[in-house]
Parts: sequence; C-alpha cells; structure tokens
Amino acid sequence: MDILLERKSVRKYTSEDVKQEDLEYILHAAMSAPTARNTRHCSFLVIKDKETHKKIAEVHQAAQMILQTPLAILVVGDQNTAYGGYLPQDCAAATENMLLAATAKGYGSVWCGIYSNEERAKAIEKLFYLPENIKAFSLVVIGKPADKNPPRNRWQPEKIKYETWK
Amino acid sequence: MDILLERKSVRKYTSEDVKQEDLEYILHAAMSAPTARNTRHCSFLVIKDKETHKKIAEVHQAAQMILQTPLAILVVGDQNTAYGGYLPQDCAAATENMLLAATAKGYGSVWCGIYSNEERAKAIEKLFYLPENIKAFSLVVIGKPADKNPPRNRWQPEKIKYETWK
Repeated sequence: MDILLERKSVRKYTSEDVKQEDLEYILHAAMSAPTARNTRHCSFLVIKDKETHKKIAEVHQAAQMILQTPLAILVVGDQNTAYGGYLPQDCAAATENMLLAATAKGYGSVWCGIYSNEERAKAIEKLFYLPENIKAFSLVVIGKPADKNPPRNRWQPEKIKYETWK
Repeated sequence: MDILLERKSVRKYTSEDVKQEDLEYILHAAMSAPTARNTRHCSFLVIKDKETHKKIAEVHQAAQMILQTPLAILVVGDQNTAYGGYLPQDCAAATENMLLAATAKGYGSVWCGIYSNEERAKAIEKLFYLPENIKAFSLVVIGKPADKNPPRNRWQPEKIKYETWK
C-alpha cells in the first residue's frame, strides 16, 4: 500500500475503536514532522469523550463526522516558541503525517481546519481551556471507514513547470 | 522502512542525480496531499539548472545545500484559488508529502522555508517571474545524502494531553 498516494479524506465512519498502539504510532508520526528551526512546539490533545465530540460539532460545522468516530486529535501550536510565522506550516506538516499514519494503520481520517477561521478557533480554544499562546490549528478525525471507495488518482502534469514560471 | 518516523532533514549531499521516475513519484505525492475545499491550487517548479541554483543561494541564506544537489523543487500556491487563509497549510501538506516521498525512494531532502519571510519570498518570486497571485511557499532540496546519520527518535509523550489542556 502506498500511503502517500492512497490517503484520502474519509467522511463516513463505523464506531470501531482505534487501538492504543495505533494511536501512539499516529502521535509519534506527528512528532516526527519537521518544524522550522526545530522548535517542536506542536502538542496533541487526544479527545475520546463523546460529550466533548458533541460540543466540538456545535462550533465546527465541517467536523460533523466526529459524531460517528471514537477519536479526534486536536493539533495545537505554541506561538511563544514557534519560529517567526511558521506555526501553521509546522502544524500542517504534523497534521499531514497523522493522516498518513492513520492510512498506514488501516484507518480513515480527515483534516478539519481551524486556524485561519478566527471565530471557530476562538470557540475551540475556549472549549479546551487553551492558554493565550497555544493556538488551535486542526482537528484530525480518525476511525474505520464505513465505505471502501478507492482513492482518486490526483496526478496533474499541468501543475509542473520547469526552471521558471514563464 | 518507516518513512514517517525515518524522514529527517539532510544538509550534506552527493552530486548524484535524481531519477526521472523518482521525481515523478515525488511530484505525484505532492499532488496527493489534501487542500482545503479541494482547491488543488499548488504548483511545482522543477529546478535543475545549476546557474539558477546559485541565484537561489544568493537570496536564500538557509538553502546553501542547493549548491551540492542536482534538484530543487519550488512549491507555490495560487492565492486566487486557495480557500480562505489556507494557502500555507495546503502547501505545507504538499511539501511534507514530498519530503516523505523522497525518503521512500532513498533520497535525502530538506524543507527550506520561504512563505512568512517577506523579503525572501519577494526575491524568489521575482527570480522565477511568478505572477502576483502565485505565492512562493517552500523550496524542497533533494539528493543523495552524503552521510548516513540515523534519524532521531522524536517521541515526546509530554506533548500529548487527554481530553482538555487543563
């Protein structure tokens, strides 16, 4: 299985649990993503409580699939230790690694955006009592896919240019 | 080989070339990363010309290793088609996929940041004649590693929290 080409966003899940060892692998993959100047400022909130999932769904319109799954992980970055403006880039690399790690272990996943949506970010930061310097970046929803749709081929040679844009 | 845990930033390279099929795999992996609202606005400039590498090294202090390698790829995003403020997040996911794809194929790689450094971004955008709406995001340098340093274990259980920050 080629996890890079076969990862896809999954929006329908079964209620089957994520194994503890797989959860740890997903978190280890997240921590193994690069950060600018190696500041390693990202942290990960593991959220399994269904009441909390309901509260997230109330403030995050695009994260309704959290109501079906046993697990979501909130990715946050520390504005005090991130280098320059790189907080979202670092957190995005960690998020992508989590999606790929979930794929590698046979789970589906989806990246629900938070950062860049100020209202949504504030609501999530309040819900989890994040300190001022800790910024909510993304919510990664993980579980067993309810359907077996194959991934799309996303090869687009027209997106490649050689040597210069012109 | 576990590409998620074994990817690392490589800063010393041999001059050995990157095979065309491996380059295409790396670009396919980049295109397979998710984008917010599936806008797929990222493009990729393949840069092999050594004179251009020298010009990049003049304006990008942290990209000096480009002078050793046969290949660099400039990742750019289209501000006109990216959704909301998600351009850097989308380009970061594509960049991370490229680093992982290079690792999978036995190459070293390093992510040289551009976006968030306004002066550097302007210089690169000018060098490659990027239109106003096309934003330089990162430069991915790829080649055969000159040393065989093992990757670090980056597991940090203190970065994990459960259910809430408090």
